[in-house]
Amino acid sequence: MLDRINRVRAQMRQADVSAFLVTALPHLRYLFGFTGSNGLGLITSDLCFFVTDWRYRDQAQAEVRHAEILIVYRDLLAALKEKKILPDGCRLGFEAQHLNFRLFAQLQKNFEKIKFISTEHFIEKIAIPKSPSEIASLRQAGAMACAVWDQLLPCIHPGVAESDLAAEIIYRSRKLGSEIEPFDPIVASGPRSALPHGRSTSRRLQAGDFVVIDYGCVVDGYASDVTRTIAVGEPPAKLRQAYFAVKEACRLACEAARPGMEGMQLDQTARQYLESCGFKEQFSHSLGHGLGLDVHSLPRLGPESKDVIPANAVITIEPGVYFPELGGVRLEDDLLVTATGNEVLTPMARDLFVVE
Amino acid sequence: MLDRINRVRAQMRQADVSAFLVTALPHLRYLFGFTGSNGLGLITSDLCFFVTDWRYRDQAQAEVRHAEILIVYRDLLAALKEKKILPDGCRLGFEAQHLNFRLFAQLQKNFEKIKFISTEHFIEKIAIPKSPSEIASLRQAGAMACAVWDQLLPCIHPGVAESDLAAEIIYRSRKLGSEIEPFDPIVASGPRSALPHGRSTSRRLQAGDFVVIDYGCVVDGYASDVTRTIAVGEPPAKLRQAYFAVKEACRLACEAARPGMEGMQLDQTARQYLESCGFKEQFSHSLGHGLGLDVHSLPRLGPESKDVIPANAVITIEPGVYFPELGGVRLEDDLLVTATGNEVLTPMARDLFVVE
Repeated sequence: MLDRINRVRAQMRQADVSAFLVTALPHLRYLFGFTGSNGLGLITSDLCFFVTDWRYRDQAQAEVRHAEILIVYRDLLAALKEKKILPDGCRLGFEAQHLNFRLFAQLQKNFEKIKFISTEHFIEKIAIPKSPSEIASLRQAGAMACAVWDQLLPCIHPGVAESDLAAEIIYRSRKLGSEIEPFDPIVASGPRSALPHGRSTSRRLQAGDFVVIDYGCVVDGYASDVTRTIAVGEPPAKLRQAYFAVKEACRLACEAARPGMEGMQLDQTARQYLESCGFKEQFSHSLGHGLGLDVHSLPRLGPESKDVIPANAVITIEPGVYFPELGGVRLEDDLLVTATGNEVLTPMARDLFVVE
Repeated sequence: MLDRINRVRAQMRQADVSAFLVTALPHLRYLFGFTGSNGLGLITSDLCFFVTDWRYRDQAQAEVRHAEILIVYRDLLAALKEKKILPDGCRLGFEAQHLNFRLFAQLQKNFEKIKFISTEHFIEKIAIPKSPSEIASLRQAGAMACAVWDQLLPCIHPGVAESDLAAEIIYRSRKLGSEIEPFDPIVASGPRSALPHGRSTSRRLQAGDFVVIDYGCVVDGYASDVTRTIAVGEPPAKLRQAYFAVKEACRLACEAARPGMEGMQLDQTARQYLESCGFKEQFSHSLGHGLGLDVHSLPRLGPESKDVIPANAVITIEPGVYFPELGGVRLEDDLLVTATGNEVLTPMARDLFVVE
């Protein structure tokens, strides 16, 4: 983790900030090893501080490395102020997306004479290429999602409720060792499968439904994120056609992914194919995203993304086609980008599975 | 919900703001009925707007009432700017805790000539007294947590892992109809039970352990939040003594709770008793908190809280005693404060349950 902090320091020099405030929980875990739910990190060119409240005293002492630990009763900033580590006029970087206005106002009040530098994706950028131990966790999270799928398949039949399948996904994931759900499982059937972000409801599966099932597992904080779509009985011809188009788009993108590509370039491999099938309007979201301690992280893989995909990035490939009120199809796998190409971390069949 | 929006408007007049920006997801659900995960609301003295992105188009149209719905591809603020509803110089209120700096900076850029008024707990205050339908949901969420406990008890025995019990809690909650977990269940055994916020691990229960189990269910977005502590085999005398002190503190607070009390006054009923038992240092957190769409909401029930508890508030009572490295005890129930006293929404026995 010292290596990660040193990468933050290198980026601080580039951005001309002399200190950086770490506020997002996944970043506190990434940089300091802390898995609790309240804390702040402060990195300077030669010092590191980690502040949390008394509830996490023992946990911080057990987990946090490479930082001086400060325990407070309530006010995290007071502890930093007391340390006098931020000289007047110094430039303090922070992540705009992960600092709420309340904390910002408190910072301004406590540190009147320092200059606040708003940044975006500062830590996320550093975290894109994964270390061997991170890759091991991501590989395990991918394998776990595959094992969950094998156990889930026999549970899928006409009459079962979406919410029952969500319960099975979570239960089996946890029993297999997943720490938590990276997001609430999506189980969207029939017309609801046309909602890219439909949660599960009490709706029961019935003949003619397509069912989009999107979930993930978490190992050591690292997430997998997979989607499969299954048919209940004979699907409408339009959905069947969409299924095979999405399957081929997924295959093409997985075949193409290699280091050095821009996000938009990879997105195009799937998008152009779906357009050629007549599904331009129906593929309405990005091809995928980076995976890490945050389930939606960099690099972005959308039609406008210039993010470059480096070796050792882990990404999702998730093309989808949606027809409002009829239904939708999405397939999603996780890839580790290697020096020469990629390795699929979620090796599950993409054949159309029809349950009767 | 129009009634809720009108209460926001009354509070806007008091705070002298002519428009209010709603950013927190539970507040968007409370005021507009929206259950998706991206959106903004804007309330003026006579208009309401709800903005979300294209992914939630159908959902917003199905769910949102009393507001003009604006669907955007990406930039939520652009839609509001286009509507020209914020005249130069107008005072726009927002919740400091629920607005990240990124959105704040975008607001400043898009609306150069308006005045931003930072507020705290603006919507939460309005949401403290619950309506009959909210109470019905909270009552159901409480009953569901009790039903989960009945099913969980037979699963608790020496050798079972904390994480297996967490899996059972979630599975049974979902099968009983809980929408989601209000927070990841806490199952903390042995020395880990001394951590007020210990998550579940692979640690297996063994003789001599105290096990703190803290979880909740969600109905229509409304949460319950209960805690029980059980003993595995014969517990150390100190923990047994702490158990009965916490049980009595819980009973005293539940007996005392009535409308018009200040949070600190109710906190004192339990705190004084635990102090009289010699556990002053060991009861290191607040007595409880309000329950609603957010599991931790107003009124605060801590030693410094001047929040007044009105009739129809729903609160938790959760005294605890913790001995680092040895273990801890916490008991928690949910109360509906009525016109004359209160009603326990989680009527589960508080007897010490010893599993062998």
